[in-house]
Amino acid sequence: MKNLSETKFALSYINKYGSLMAQGNGYLGLRASHEEDYPGQVRGMYLAGVYNRPAGSESAELVNLPDIAGMRIELDGQLFSLQMGKIVEYERHLALGSGLLTRRIIWRDPRGRLFELIFERVVGKTRGTLIGSRVSIKSLDQAVGAVVTTGIDGQQTNFGTQQLVEEKLHVAAGDFMVGHYETIESDRKIVIAAKVAPGGVITAKNRQIKSQVTLDLEPGQAATLEKIAVVCSDLDIEATNMEIGRSFQQKDDSSEAVFATLESGALAKLADRDFDWLKQEVAQEWTQFWGTGRVMLESKEATANIDQLALDFASYHLEIMTPKNDPRMSVGAKGLTGEGYKGHVFWDTEIFIMPYFLHHSPETAKNMLLYRYHHLQEAKEKAQKYGYSGALFPWESAFSGREETPEFAAINIRTGKRQRIASALAEHHIVADIAYAVWSYFQATQDQAFMGKYGRALLRETAEFWLSRAVRRDGRYQILDVIGPDEYTEHVDNNAYTNYLAAFNVRQAMRFNQDETDFCHRGADFLAKLYLPAAGSDGIVPQDDTFLTKPQIDLAKYKQAQGKQGILLDYSRAEVIDMQILKQADLVMLFYLLPQLFSADIVAQNLSFYEERTIHDSSLSKAIHAIVACRSGDVATAYRFFQEACLIDLGGDPHSSDDGIHAAAAGAIWLSAVFGFAGVDTTGVRLRFAPRLPAAWQKMSFHFWWQNEKLHIELKQGSIKFSKSSTTELEIEVNGKLLKLTGEAVEERI
Amino acid sequence: MKNLSETKFALSYINKYGSLMAQGNGYLGLRASHEEDYPGQVRGMYLAGVYNRPAGSESAELVNLPDIAGMRIELDGQLFSLQMGKIVEYERHLALGSGLLTRRIIWRDPRGRLFELIFERVVGKTRGTLIGSRVSIKSLDQAVGAVVTTGIDGQQTNFGTQQLVEEKLHVAAGDFMVGHYETIESDRKIVIAAKVAPGGVITAKNRQIKSQVTLDLEPGQAATLEKIAVVCSDLDIEATNMEIGRSFQQKDDSSEAVFATLESGALAKLADRDFDWLKQEVAQEWTQFWGTGRVMLESKEATANIDQLALDFASYHLEIMTPKNDPRMSVGAKGLTGEGYKGHVFWDTEIFIMPYFLHHSPETAKNMLLYRYHHLQEAKEKAQKYGYSGALFPWESAFSGREETPEFAAINIRTGKRQRIASALAEHHIVADIAYAVWSYFQATQDQAFMGKYGRALLRETAEFWLSRAVRRDGRYQILDVIGPDEYTEHVDNNAYTNYLAAFNVRQAMRFNQDETDFCHRGADFLAKLYLPAAGSDGIVPQDDTFLTKPQIDLAKYKQAQGKQGILLDYSRAEVIDMQILKQADLVMLFYLLPQLFSADIVAQNLSFYEERTIHDSSLSKAIHAIVACRSGDVATAYRFFQEACLIDLGGDPHSSDDGIHAAAAGAIWLSAVFGFAGVDTTGVRLRFAPRLPAAWQKMSFHFWWQNEKLHIELKQGSIKFSKSSTTELEIEVNGKLLKLTGEAVEERI
Repeated sequence: MKNLSETKFALSYINKYGSLMAQGNGYLGLRASHEEDYPGQVRGMYLAGVYNRPAGSESAELVNLPDIAGMRIELDGQLFSLQMGKIVEYERHLALGSGLLTRRIIWRDPRGRLFELIFERVVGKTRGTLIGSRVSIKSLDQAVGAVVTTGIDGQQTNFGTQQLVEEKLHVAAGDFMVGHYETIESDRKIVIAAKVAPGGVITAKNRQIKSQVTLDLEPGQAATLEKIAVVCSDLDIEATNMEIGRSFQQKDDSSEAVFATLESGALAKLADRDFDWLKQEVAQEWTQFWGTGRVMLESKEATANIDQLALDFASYHLEIMTPKNDPRMSVGAKGLTGEGYKGHVFWDTEIFIMPYFLHHSPETAKNMLLYRYHHLQEAKEKAQKYGYSGALFPWESAFSGREETPEFAAINIRTGKRQRIASALAEHHIVADIAYAVWSYFQATQDQAFMGKYGRALLRETAEFWLSRAVRRDGRYQILDVIGPDEYTEHVDNNAYTNYLAAFNVRQAMRFNQDETDFCHRGADFLAKLYLPAAGSDGIVPQDDTFLTKPQIDLAKYKQAQGKQGILLDYSRAEVIDMQILKQADLVMLFYLLPQLFSADIVAQNLSFYEERTIHDSSLSKAIHAIVACRSGDVATAYRFFQEACLIDLGGDPHSSDDGIHAAAAGAIWLSAVFGFAGVDTTGVRLRFAPRLPAAWQKMSFHFWWQNEKLHIELKQGSIKFSKSSTTELEIEVNGKLLKLTGEAVEERI
Repeated sequence: MKNLSETKFALSYINKYGSLMAQGNGYLGLRASHEEDYPGQVRGMYLAGVYNRPAGSESAELVNLPDIAGMRIELDGQLFSLQMGKIVEYERHLALGSGLLTRRIIWRDPRGRLFELIFERVVGKTRGTLIGSRVSIKSLDQAVGAVVTTGIDGQQTNFGTQQLVEEKLHVAAGDFMVGHYETIESDRKIVIAAKVAPGGVITAKNRQIKSQVTLDLEPGQAATLEKIAVVCSDLDIEATNMEIGRSFQQKDDSSEAVFATLESGALAKLADRDFDWLKQEVAQEWTQFWGTGRVMLESKEATANIDQLALDFASYHLEIMTPKNDPRMSVGAKGLTGEGYKGHVFWDTEIFIMPYFLHHSPETAKNMLLYRYHHLQEAKEKAQKYGYSGALFPWESAFSGREETPEFAAINIRTGKRQRIASALAEHHIVADIAYAVWSYFQATQDQAFMGKYGRALLRETAEFWLSRAVRRDGRYQILDVIGPDEYTEHVDNNAYTNYLAAFNVRQAMRFNQDETDFCHRGADFLAKLYLPAAGSDGIVPQDDTFLTKPQIDLAKYKQAQGKQGILLDYSRAEVIDMQILKQADLVMLFYLLPQLFSADIVAQNLSFYEERTIHDSSLSKAIHAIVACRSGDVATAYRFFQEACLIDLGGDPHSSDDGIHAAAAGAIWLSAVFGFAGVDTTGVRLRFAPRLPAAWQKMSFHFWWQNEKLHIELKQGSIKFSKSSTTELEIEVNGKLLKLTGEAVEERI
């Protein structure tokens, strides 16, 4: 399995690689910052669900925890830093296969002495996370006294905002450095413990506890320092006695008791553990993950080099961004790799990230929906606040389940004016997106118990929202003043994406709430009278009531620099809104989610029409275009879109991912391979395949969970082969042809 | 005038020089951090009176403000940092005479190109402080594109604790970067504005607003960037309508109005100002200060080299640490040069710092006493809380006037136990110290108006405290369970320093409250019956009831490393307390303050006895020993003590002053010259002199305010010469001989 590699040390890429090479387990994320400090290097460690609302702020932020990765290395008093001396050799790589981050350097220090330094770091895959690091230093030409200082550094902030009170720093059980922290506003309790071997002199001051270790370096012999740390929070404790429902049972123990429990748990986790043990343990767990978690490609084309790496990168990050079984937390827009979007949860989770889990680990997908169910009450309160019924889920959410979208965007530094963020007020499609995810969960699992207990209520309350949201005008229900997924168009009426999804939402809610006759009656009326934009005589489905009347401009310049929102430098937002300019295409998104809604002709025509008007400034855009282009038969274009989507994080832009990787884009890379090139369609009665392999690929294979079956699909130019885990019969369709799968592998020509 | 210089760039000294070379004006202090970042470099800018109590903390902290000194310099993409490349020449100096900080570097960058960089920085001497900086870059061998990025950096914290909400960042009046900040708990409002010339591209993100300026460097021609900034707070506004009394009038304007006022004031201050103007303005003001602010020495001895520099260093820092006319703020133990002791005010201010101002600028000294008067109510509340009458001033205070001493010392990281800090509970001598300062103010000024309005009440309330504090035992009043200035002796009875000062306090209170017959009656009873430890048959005055019964140990080892509290590594605090070990000598302190209390014999004998038992771990110790040794006639020992006191900040220890200079020690350097070698005694009816010039000095001269007269004293080996500002007759004594000064200069043989 290919590594994610960095072959040159460059300060300008330091935060991009800090995100790309981050490690974690869905509960904890640790940025791949270097052990030594560099100007502008952003360290970061985050726990899922640990948010805090800082003084003077309207929204909760994912808390940047005290740092444990930093190490200060002095060689006879000479500070180790790659800014100094000369880098003779440098290589860093994240082994996606085993989760191990390794950096090897041959360094000539400013005094002319030669050293080899090898750094390794690994993050445990289970909650209450263990983190191991090891540094091995070899002086290549003379005896040197090395001093390594490392510990727990509570001076870490979210870009200057401190979220934690340091309750206590102390040394426990002889040589464990321990820090107790509590978030200032949200009262989350965190304990971090660490020990180094060999041991050193431990001191504590200014929110830091550190061990200073002396290593005598004999020429040519490596000396090694290991550090093993553990990070726990009170969310770990509560997870043991959790009940889905209106509120989770909060233990009413005193802070002191909680800290004592956390500390004794942390120390027990660390006892007798060393770096090698953890490295092996983690490697095993990653091996297990990759056994089924991967889309495997075979290609002889050099141009396809990025494809496998991008798919592996996507699976790796999907795995480390997602909490597995704690419905109090979901997945933020940057996972746990950075502070972008303050760690908030958007529609990205249900629409772009959940499918990977739905078809690999349905329990994890269920957890994402339980997160929404758990916050149904807050969603109903938001609806009520704006005069609607049902559940209006927040555009951005965190731990509380309340709306966390900042009311205002960052101030315009030129005008001094604050711009109101409209998303929380109008980007209501998230309600239907969640309903769609509930339905797709049922499609994939047939989990009646879930539907009865949670799914039914989610569908019903989201549908009630739409019934109250639509207004009667010209004899029809219309949905006015919304923002669709395309955020370059604001406050429009009858956005096609929104209206069709709302209808879908209400229809599915009726299906699962047939006993609610009043509701079903109102639902039927809604469906009968809801205005659903149809294709005009030219075949174009209007994105909304006014889009097609707006002027078009030449977007070539902006498309070339897509993803950077350069259009907003030349035009005001108000001007952009008044032109045929799309950040991402709503219709294309709609075609992706509901492939049977329009005829192939209409889809192809609209794809072409809207793509011409789309800058792809959203990281969600390209991969979805790849899927729809593929379904329309234009595999070459689809493959181009796919490859461009692969570069959203992995491309050459040094600052593309400074504040975290694009979580939804990682999900979308997987979607475009499976729902695009493998042509999977999960919206019908049967699982359907209409594969179209890119010319550059000889083979593509992957695992796919479907209704309690684990399928393995192997796709070649001209054939598709299925095998599965049980002997139960499963009916599927390949290019419209019914196929019955049993225990035997089945190969079909295509 | 000699500069304070650094001739070698060394990371280990970076924070020491950051404190030593700090600039300011008593209202604002700016640490001398380098423009570029270095690992471990602590930036700092502080406003007198701007404290904040962080979440989870018991005490307010001096707020570290957003940074304006930092600059990022890139030369064709190569970051400028002295950690890289080669330093060909390096020199930094603070011109004490003009307040200008200059750094000149010849640097060979890692690509082998040679550059000259000159940095200058100056801080305005008036409130609502202007700060100017200039960087001049010369490429010595080729054309280079330089990019300098600088602005206002709100990521600054107090070692990880953020005290400020960023209310707004914006660009005003075309090219002024402006930040509005509010302290989280104390609601202080701060506005910082800055502009650079030439102008650059301004952006704002993550609590930073920055201008990125491009400079084209032609070989051999310097390109220059100037930055001028201003820092204001709502304390500046309120200062205009302030009334001393129970509380200051707080304007009830809305936050928005306050920010608007501050911003328009800030922008008006900046308008049309440039670096050269400010540099000249500041130089003029410093020249004026030095006209009278200096002790001038003449010496031919190389060993005396440090003496003049230390005295100038002391005057410089006394001047920049002290707010001049705003009784809401006083002087912290580190001035405004660092975060040590959280910026809190101790007895240091009245006893060690105030005398310099009392005899140079009595209005400033008065301001320090008004700070105490302003908080008489809080001191009475503290007394009441512990069951006493009168005023028990807090051991540490900040803006609120309440006790700010942390209840517990930093946790013992080994035992996990927190140690209660006893100072706030028992170090009650501060009450008498303040009373002493009130009396000494009256001695020096004869300011009857002050005494009637403020001084009388301060003396009365502090005396009432002592009347309630003493207990009747064995037929006498005794003061039990206190800590004297010597903090290596805790919870003792009848501490000599405390008892004598308490008696002095009550006596002076009676003198100024003769109409209060009941009080005077109780005061007389107290004075008649208070136990005042007298010298035993061996001549030794017991420091307290038990000190002389404790075992003595050999302190040679600890005295060699004085100031480092090394004794606490070998012995527990409890063990230290139970031995004859002093941090500083209480009796010596008492002799200094009340020179007429004991005979010369007793003083000399006790000085010798206690000095043997004193480690001088307190920075307050040495200079006071110098004074008392000098008075005892041992000038050589006094001079040795003086020179050692000069090294408290200026010595070679790289970390002596990391968290700020020793403010009281600066005051004490001046005290030991004037009250020691010049032999000034202000405690009598007349100003007295008993000069004893060190052998190394040929001449010493200084200005000295006394009862509305500005004296100039010129001291030589064998003579002393006086001149003064007016023709009014003033009687003084020189070595017991009465001298009448008029307008004419008078020289007297000694």
